[in-house]
Parts: sequence; C-alpha cells; structure tokens
Amino acid sequence: MLKKRMRSVPLNFIRIGDSFWKKHIDLVENAIIPYQWEAMNDRIPDAESSHCIENFRIAAGEKEGKFYGAVFQDTDVAKWLEAVGCSLAGHPDEQLEETADEVIDLIGRAQQPDGYINTYFTIQAPEERWSNLTEGHELYTAGHLIEAAVAYYYGTGKRKFVEIMSRFADLICETFGEDKAIHGYPGHPEIELALIRLYEVTGKKQYLETAKYFVDMRGGEPNYFLEERKRADYKKIFPEFEGYLPLYSQSHLPVREQKTAEGHAVRAVYLYCAMADLAYEYQAQGLFNACENLWNNIVKKRMYITGGIGSSGLLERFTTDYDLPNERNYSETCASIGLALFGMRMAQITRDARYVDTVERALYNTMLAGIALDGKSFFYVNPLEVWPDNCLPKTSLEHVKSIRQKWFGVACCPPNIARTLASMGQYIYSVSEEGLCVNLFIENDCELRLGGETYLVRIKSKFPCENRFTIQIAGDAKLPNLWIRVPAYARSFQIIGTDIEGTEESIKASEHRVSYKVDKGYAHIREDVAGKTLTVTFDAPATFVRANPLVRADAGKVCIVRGPLVYTFEEADNGENLEALYIDTRQPLVEEYQENLLQGVVKVKAQGKRMQMQAWSEDALYQEIPVTLEDITMTAIPYPYWNNRGKGEMCVWIKELL
Amino acid sequence: MLKKRMRSVPLNFIRIGDSFWKKHIDLVENAIIPYQWEAMNDRIPDAESSHCIENFRIAAGEKEGKFYGAVFQDTDVAKWLEAVGCSLAGHPDEQLEETADEVIDLIGRAQQPDGYINTYFTIQAPEERWSNLTEGHELYTAGHLIEAAVAYYYGTGKRKFVEIMSRFADLICETFGEDKAIHGYPGHPEIELALIRLYEVTGKKQYLETAKYFVDMRGGEPNYFLEERKRADYKKIFPEFEGYLPLYSQSHLPVREQKTAEGHAVRAVYLYCAMADLAYEYQAQGLFNACENLWNNIVKKRMYITGGIGSSGLLERFTTDYDLPNERNYSETCASIGLALFGMRMAQITRDARYVDTVERALYNTMLAGIALDGKSFFYVNPLEVWPDNCLPKTSLEHVKSIRQKWFGVACCPPNIARTLASMGQYIYSVSEEGLCVNLFIENDCELRLGGETYLVRIKSKFPCENRFTIQIAGDAKLPNLWIRVPAYARSFQIIGTDIEGTEESIKASEHRVSYKVDKGYAHIREDVAGKTLTVTFDAPATFVRANPLVRADAGKVCIVRGPLVYTFEEADNGENLEALYIDTRQPLVEEYQENLLQGVVKVKAQGKRMQMQAWSEDALYQEIPVTLEDITMTAIPYPYWNNRGKGEMCVWIKELL
Repeated sequence: MLKKRMRSVPLNFIRIGDSFWKKHIDLVENAIIPYQWEAMNDRIPDAESSHCIENFRIAAGEKEGKFYGAVFQDTDVAKWLEAVGCSLAGHPDEQLEETADEVIDLIGRAQQPDGYINTYFTIQAPEERWSNLTEGHELYTAGHLIEAAVAYYYGTGKRKFVEIMSRFADLICETFGEDKAIHGYPGHPEIELALIRLYEVTGKKQYLETAKYFVDMRGGEPNYFLEERKRADYKKIFPEFEGYLPLYSQSHLPVREQKTAEGHAVRAVYLYCAMADLAYEYQAQGLFNACENLWNNIVKKRMYITGGIGSSGLLERFTTDYDLPNERNYSETCASIGLALFGMRMAQITRDARYVDTVERALYNTMLAGIALDGKSFFYVNPLEVWPDNCLPKTSLEHVKSIRQKWFGVACCPPNIARTLASMGQYIYSVSEEGLCVNLFIENDCELRLGGETYLVRIKSKFPCENRFTIQIAGDAKLPNLWIRVPAYARSFQIIGTDIEGTEESIKASEHRVSYKVDKGYAHIREDVAGKTLTVTFDAPATFVRANPLVRADAGKVCIVRGPLVYTFEEADNGENLEALYIDTRQPLVEEYQENLLQGVVKVKAQGKRMQMQAWSEDALYQEIPVTLEDITMTAIPYPYWNNRGKGEMCVWIKELL
Repeated sequence: MLKKRMRSVPLNFIRIGDSFWKKHIDLVENAIIPYQWEAMNDRIPDAESSHCIENFRIAAGEKEGKFYGAVFQDTDVAKWLEAVGCSLAGHPDEQLEETADEVIDLIGRAQQPDGYINTYFTIQAPEERWSNLTEGHELYTAGHLIEAAVAYYYGTGKRKFVEIMSRFADLICETFGEDKAIHGYPGHPEIELALIRLYEVTGKKQYLETAKYFVDMRGGEPNYFLEERKRADYKKIFPEFEGYLPLYSQSHLPVREQKTAEGHAVRAVYLYCAMADLAYEYQAQGLFNACENLWNNIVKKRMYITGGIGSSGLLERFTTDYDLPNERNYSETCASIGLALFGMRMAQITRDARYVDTVERALYNTMLAGIALDGKSFFYVNPLEVWPDNCLPKTSLEHVKSIRQKWFGVACCPPNIARTLASMGQYIYSVSEEGLCVNLFIENDCELRLGGETYLVRIKSKFPCENRFTIQIAGDAKLPNLWIRVPAYARSFQIIGTDIEGTEESIKASEHRVSYKVDKGYAHIREDVAGKTLTVTFDAPATFVRANPLVRADAGKVCIVRGPLVYTFEEADNGENLEALYIDTRQPLVEEYQENLLQGVVKVKAQGKRMQMQAWSEDALYQEIPVTLEDITMTAIPYPYWNNRGKGEMCVWIKELL
C-alpha cells in the first residue's frame, strides 16, 4: 500500500477519440441518456413503467399520487444523473445540463426538512424510515444520489447537488454511529464508497468516519440484520429473501476476517471498494490485507475469464471456489463494473498493474457485453454459454436472457453501463506527484496536472485491433516517472522513442529503444520523454487459454483470448448445437479483420471437428455407436459483441480435441 | 393394445431366491419395516419426528393433542402398510401381521362416520375438507391408503382394510363427479390408480368410473386449480408453490392432448399409470395413444440412462427435451418407481418387451440406488455426478445429498423402495390366458394359475453377474405360449432345451436349440416346454454407451453399461476430480468379479488418461499452458451401489478421448 495513492485524471481533462471505445461511448449521449430519460418519464411504449420522476414530484408535494416501483426506484434517477455528469464532463451539452439541473432542483424540493431524501419512505412509509436496513435500501439509494452529485460536480462545476446531498449525508452521520441512535449498516453496501467520494469533494472528515463506521461494524456480533428481524415492527419487503442469510450481504463475519468473496456479487464489490479506500485513508494494513485476500479469492478462484462474477443465477451470488458454470451463472453487468471499480482502487493504492489486467478484462468483456451495438438493449446476466430454447422457468434458467432486453423493472445495469462508458477516462491513467501510470491503451488527449505542472498527454491507438500505440507527453517540466502497463497477455513488449520534432520520413532515423524496468506490471521509464513520441508495441495473438482443471465446467475445454478480448462462438457462424464442436488446438488460429462484421472486428478462425448426427435418429437417446467427427472451420467473435445478430446459441468454452 | 391384458402373478404365489435381489429384498423385512415402524412411533433418536401413528390416535379421539407433520403425513402409515402387505405375501410373519392389524384397526377407528379418513383435515381443519385440491393431498393420501389396503388383502387374505377403504372410496365417488358436488381432481395424482386397484379386488365399477372421471376432467377449461385459488376461502398450504402453474400438476391440457412429460415427475408417472389402466379397461385408443406419446417422450428425450426422471432439482420436475444435467437433477427414487409401474402397465397391455427394458433399467439402477446396502439410509435424489463439497444452498445444490440420509421429514422414498423390493415379484412375469411372459431374469419359484391349470415355474439365475439362467415349467397341461424377453442389450441370445429328467451328466446329450421368433422384444416359443429345462444365454458385456449429441450435458462423454446395470466412477477407486478423467474407448473394458467389494459385484476396468495438475498452482485460474495427460486405469462399479464406501465424488459420464 502506497503512502500516497494515485488518482484518476478528472474526466473533464480527458477527451477520448478511440476507434474501439468511442462508438460505444457516443451511445451514452446519443442513445442511453435520452432513452433513459424517456423511460424515467414513462414514455417508452411496451417497456416496464418507471414512474421515478413522478415519485419525486409526489414526494415534493407538487403532485397527488402514490409511490410506484421498487424501494430503490430513486436510484434510477441517481444513476441517470451520474451518467449525465460523466457525459457532460467529456461532452458539454447545454440542453441536457438544463434538464439535469431541473431534476436536481426537483430532488432538492423533495428533500425533507431534516435533509432526508427517499421517495418510497417519504410517500409511502414515513414511519418506517431506517427500520429495515436489511431490505430497505435507503442507505444504498442515498449512496447513489451522492455519487451522482459528485459526478455532476466534476462534470459541470456546479455544487448545488453536492450541497443537497451533503445535507442528507449530515443527517446520516447524525443518525448512525457509536454514540448515535442506530448502530446498523446497510443491507446493500454503496453508501460507504459514496460518503468517501463526498469527503473528497467536501473535505468533511465526518463522511469518511461514518463510512468507516459502517465498514467496521459490519458482520459484528450480534448480527444487526438478524436482530433487526426480531423487532415487533419489522416489516418484510422482499418475500423471496425469507431464507436470507448474513452471508448474502457480506455480514457473516467482520470484514477484516472475510477471506472469500461471498453473497450477492454487486453488494460484495461495492463494499470492497469502500474497504480499499478506507484502508488507504487510514493506512489500515489489516483492512488492506482483507482487500487483497478478497481480490485474490475472486480472481484466482471465482471469476469467469470474461471478468464476470456471481456464479449463481439464484440470488445473484458467489458460490464456491472453482464453481463456474457457464450456462446458469449470473455474472451481472453491474458486478463486473463493481469489480473494475474495486480493481482500480487496488491498482491506485499499490501501483500494481496486475489489478488493471482484471479491470481491463471486465470492462472489455462483461461490461461491454451488457449493451447492444446500437445502445438500445441490455444484458443484466452474462452467461458464457446460451441455449436459447432452454432459457425457461422450468429449467431454472429464466434469469438468462437469450436476447438483450429493452429496459428493466430494476434498471440498474443500463445506467451503470452508461456511467461506466462515460467515465472510461478514469481508467486510462493513474497519477500522483510521483508520476503517471498508463493503464489502458485508449486513444485520448489529456491535460495532466501534476506537482504544480501541466502536461499534455496524447495517446494514439488502434488497440486492440492492433497491438501498437504511441504516447506523446509535452510539458515544461520533466515528468518525474512514467509507468506503462505491460499486460499479462503481452509478448515481446517494447518501447521505441522517437524525436517528436521529426517528420514522418525521419522517424526511423532518430528512433531508439527506450529502456525500462518492469515494476509490478508496469514498464518503468526513467528517461525524459518530453518532446518524444513513444511507440509501444507487443504481440498479443489470439491464443488458446485453459482453465484450472478444478473448474469442472471447463475441464477438457479451451477458450480463445486475444489481448483483452475473450472470444466466443455463435450459432450465426457455427451452426446449431455448439456442444458438438471440438477445437483442434494443434492447428493455428487465424485472425482476420472484417470491417463489415459487427461494426468492424477481428474474427478468429480455428480448425476443429463436429460430432456428426447422421447416426442419431430422433428416437435414439442412448446408443452404443461410436462418435464420428467431420472437419470444420470454426469462427469466433469477441465476446462483448455476441447476440448482435439475433437469437442463437453462444459458447465461450469449447471441447478440446486431445 | 391387447383386448385382454396380461397381469402380474400375485406375490404370494412367488418366492424369490435370487443372488442379486434377495439380499436387498430381505432388508425390507429385516431393516426397513422395523425401522420405519420405530420412526412412525418417534422412537428413532436424531431423526425427524414423524408423529403419524399419534395423529391417527388423536383423530380416533383416543388421545388429546395436535396434528403434527405434512398434510400428507398419513401416507407414511399407508406406505408402511403397503410394504408390510407385500412383504407378508412372500414372508409370513405373525408378529408383524398382528402389529399391522392393530394399525388397521386404528385407521378404522379414525374413520369419520361418513367414511372420510385423513388425520390432518380431521384434527386440524375439518371445515377445509376438499377445499384445496391443489395442495391438500387428501385424494393422494386416500389413494395410498387404498393401495395399502389392496396390498394387505393380497398379502394376508384379510379384507377388513379393503372394507374400511371402500367406505372412503364410496364417499369419494359420492362427492366427485359430473352430477356430484365437486368437479375437481387431485393436485397430486394417485387416487386414480388406487381406485382402479380397488375396483380389481371389489368389482365395484363406480371406482373405475370415478378414476376415469378424474382423468377425463384433468386439464379441462376453465382450469380447476386456477379457479379454486380465486375462491375467498382458499388457504395456501405450501408458500413455495406461489408461482404454481397447471403444468406442474399435469393439468395444463386435457390428458389426451399431452404429448410431453411435464411438471412434477412423480405426479406425472402416477397419472400415466392410471391413464394406461383406463385405456385398457375402456379400450380407449385416444387415451392409449397419449400414454404412448408420453412414454416415448420420456424414454427418448427426458430420461437419464439410469432410468431417472425429473431433470430439475427445483420443483422436482421435467424440463425440456434433451435437458439432462448430471449434477443438479432430481431423479427422485419415487419417480423411477412410478416409471417402472407405468412401464409395466404398458408392457402388460401391449405384450411389448421394449417397455420392460426401461422398467428393468429403472429398478436395477435408480430404485436400487435409493437404498444403502445395509438398508438403513436412503436417497431421494439420484444425481449422475456428485461433487460433495458443492452440494450446498449457495450453489442451489442443497437437494443433492452426498450421503444417503437416515430418514426424511417427507418420507416417501424409503417406504416406496420397501414396497417395490417386497413386490419385485410383480415384475418377473406377465400372464394371461394366452400364456406367460418372462420379463426379468430373477431366480424364483412360482405357482402359476392360467386357464384353470396350475403350473410350477422355476427360474434359476445368477443374472446379471452371469448372463445365463434356466427355466423349468411343470404342469399337467401344455402352456399355451411362452415369451421370454430378449433384452435390448443382449447379443447372441439363444435358448437350449434339455430333458428335465436327465441327470447333470446327461444334460448335454439331450439338449437341443429351442427355436423362437422374436415378437415385440420377446422370444416367442411355440414348442411344448413341459418337463424340459430351458437354458437361456446371451452376451451382454460391459460396453460404452453414448448419449444423443443433443444431450448437451453428455456430449463428448461416454458411460459404461453392462446388461441392466449402468456403471459409475467413484472417488474411492479413481481419486479426486473425476472431471479430469478421459476414457480411451479404443481399449477394451475388463470385467472382474470381486467378492469382497460391495457384497460382491462385477467391477469394470477401463484404460484412460488423467489431466495432470502439476502445471497448475493454486493461484492460477486461467493459463495458456497445454493439457498434459497421464495414463491411468479407471475402475467403475454398478451405479446402484455408489456411496456405500463413504462420502466422495461420483460420475457416470466420463469424457471420451477422441
């Protein structure tokens, strides 16, 4: 753990212009934000009703009516505002900002005299405030509103929303604590990391301390949630959580004693984010060790190769080590976003690039799979294998959707994807007075403030299509240190320095190999790079990856990975019954860029065999006849782009011909 | 469909003395019946409370107290009495009979003045009688009591229990029907087949007609269960069935229109048994066609190779065609028993041995796997693959037990196994005036009544250890026809006739090959076999069987089958992580009888490979390294005997080295 952590560059200092990401990021402004705005105002035909703007109007006393939606319905507004804040940072838009300002004003008017904000409890159950921390989601909702306020402040410079939320945060700090009325903590973590962010923009130490209180109290004896349920006035909200165990909400043990990632995956990673922040803020080694243990448990035992987490469709939870079923997992888009947020914190408080390897995997695969190429439909659940005909209630695969959905009743994933895309800039760099880390190879221009100096950093990149990018850093002073991430998948990583004054023709003449030392996954460059163009190249060919044989679901199978992208096989390219395919891993993989496929992707062809069906009549279920195989060429596409060509089977892991 | 169906030989005319089955059958008298008697009287330490005898005492007004148990708690007593009836048929036991008589007297005293019997509704909810056919299980419970009464009559010749149950059956017939008060049918089928059996021993046509009424009404519009739930006085019993669909109880369509086996597997096969009986009794071709469609759907699309049915652990139900997951299925022991009962009816109304192939598969594998070799513990759920560490609530595999359980709160399977073992005799022969079918090759002496004549039939057999058995038939008259089943797995099936007067030494001298014609899976023998010994031999070596490649769970895998027995691999013989094993199907299988293994079994050895773990540290989840294999010899044991050597992994289907 560093004494002085690194931070991301504020979004309004970064402009992304990347051939891989920009088309997705542009969807936020052009499709997702406008679409969600319509949804929140109940103007999307055939979509589930949202009512969430209406709820605020009713809570503000400006309309008559009843609350409608989930107890956490307000978070839709919060996540939308957070996405808007992130988007405005990179793409100013007066009209959008005006609309958002009006929503913020409305939230202000719905705020209660004591600072409280929550339309469900305000309209429907004012007497039940804070009475059901297990299921009530009040602190969770508050957390998302606070995150939105912070993002809006960073994106627009306007503090009104931060002030509104600070009043609510003050109320929370006055209500929860050792010498306060309530000694509980939230059923769904989120407030903790939000209070820490609010502390960052307000400097109010109390916010940090209340976050620490929530984290420190969690899982202590007697268990708050089990006690809460015994109270006479306790009212259940979600009947399906009848058998709810402390494990589900990571309250089975004090957090410092937790060594395995348990329970609802989104709750888990949001909690771990706050733990990492607090470990740094208080330089608390025990808490940091817990973060490392939990991280390692996830990435070494409980994570899909796509960066997905949550192996169980039921209760969206972690299960056991190496239990990674491909067709019935949850792997919620939000959970992978949370994993990226957790990993980025770990990377920035350790300056260790191995965390970024996982962050990149989660962002390029599961997060991006959550949204269609047109930005109009979304996945909550991200299986690694889909048999559309079997995604039914009677197979207990109702949670797996074989096509992306327009909108959701519980609409967490779409706006979460929006804020993540709009804030991709936060993942590109880590910066502190010691210097600059380049984490992701995304084309951008960045204005960097560091030790009182300003630098202009420019990355030009066609990664991951090509494994080559350039960095130029201009500034009056020498950059103290530069670290460029060496991804775990990179081979023959090299950096060539070129005089930046040179013309295209003279580049070769003045280039030299830049020496570096690999330091925790970064190429650490000591030479002065000012005025130079650094050209980073490495090999990252499509390759076969296998899972630990203890992963029973993948034993005997391989998958194809090319740089950060996991590849998958679709029925559209490979026909029906993908379980009948074998890959011949002795044959080379062939990469082929196809411009008209999925808006331009590198597809990968493999040689293999298909089990033939001729010997099997419809009437035969079990027979003694041998397997016959026919030669085939199989085509894989990047996992994030699956299901953009209609409904069909999909399979990441394919049997290996041995 | 035959105009005159075949029937089983009454149990009291058969004495089984079989090296394979007798040790299991003896457990009924020596272990299961006494154990269950103790359980029903709450005298088993650490077992779940039963209270079911006590419930009858309370209902009879002989004791004060409250009802305890499930709404169908009475069925434990019914199934015990049925097992006792079957057992007494083969093994008279005065003391046991006396105890059973006392229980029957108690049931008689608990009968209400109008004939009604059900301790739950009598004690706890008399006003709710017949008000919840969906979940109340009253007709189901009545059915099991009727089946018990019929079995007790056959086993002892005593009619008192039949008379008691006839009074209740009369009440049911007066209550349900087109011109009667209630136009419903049971949520859990069972009464239908029970009424048909009661008709067989009483000749009262009304019982048959009410069974037909229940079957004909089922699934009509409007759906009775959906209507029932709308009533103001409807009280839910099982909250977990909130989302209950008509499909679950096979009431989604009129039965004649049902083409796929749906819903709760036990309910399904019990219903199909009655449908088959009624199809014959009324010579109803449409109903028979439905039975054939449903049978074919099960055995060609929805059945495990072990004869297990019910692919879903949740709700114990059928799922979709070819959806046969090995580690999370239900495959309830009772469902396979029901499948055997259904198959036997189909075999006897068609004289087609292909039904018996499945009956045999279910009895020799799933039914028998349900009970430990010592008769003291039981499986409800019969997976084809078990990872003990993963059988947890958080993996949604709580229903899969990695060791057999002592007793169950819902104790259907143990007594169901008991009655099945005690009535194995019913499966051996089918008989009608046309002649005799030999279905199963189980050693027994049988007194056969046929067309006014009596024959003594003796089968001597060490099957399936040896694929050879002899039949001797002695009688004054010529047996009209003899059919000996030619199992689907038999090769080189031949029958040698020998003069029965001969001595051991002279047998060879007088033997001749008996000519037969294969007729629907039976070797049809026309020659007079009186006074002869028929020696039937065939080859049925251990062999590799593959599943239709549309069975995704088994694609690329093989299993070993030897005659009726499916084989499986246990950790005890093959080490941990059975998913790392490959079978080399080009190498021969080696059979080896081992007397001291599992009370004497033929084990099967296969050559194969194991994925080596050396290259995988605990820290590596995904790597580019190739698979390395080491040669191994693998040992398989018969599936029914798995888990008799402590907890460990088990796996039926093994990856094939291609």
